Amino acid sequence: MDFITGLGLVAATLTTFSFLPQLLKIWQTKSAKDVSFVMLIFFNAGILLWLIYGLYLSALPIILANGITLFFNLIILVLKIKYK
Amino acid sequence: MDFITGLGLVAATLTTFSFLPQLLKIWQTKSAKDVSFVMLIFFNAGILLWLIYGLYLSALPIILANGITLFFNLIILVLKIKYK
Repeated sequence: MDFITGLGLVAATLTTFSFLPQLLKIWQTKSAKDVSFVMLIFFNAGILLWLIYGLYLSALPIILANGITLFFNLIILVLKIKYK
Repeated sequence: MDFITGLGLVAATLTTFSFLPQLLKIWQTKSAKDVSFVMLIFFNAGILLWLIYGLYLSALPIILANGITLFFNLIILVLKIKYK
């Protein structure tokens, strides 16, 4: 694997799994007051389009990164609505 | 412009500018208690690597989307530290 591919993989891993501590924080504190609902709607919509984009191109890294990111952020959205 | 490029551009615009309402929310409420500090560190680090990745590839869409996303999220990180 070349340097640039490795760089992209590390970048994708960092941005994808950064949402796990956010999810766990809301889960534990049962509070999501400061997390913007508008951000979650726009972000989830955008990530869903990225996922469709990846499926069209059959690009596994785009599908994987955005699939996992969407999974985490849909749970964050559900928790945001639940703890409103 | 073909459909798939348009889809990617809409996706990039949605995910990039989703952070603006989050930034404004923290700015207005002066509270970021529920926003995960660990998420912000990992996300900013990941977006910085995506930006370097785009610069290496001279890929303007990756540079623009991640440059603006990094700009918004660094301000969110500063506000998170300020209102801790």
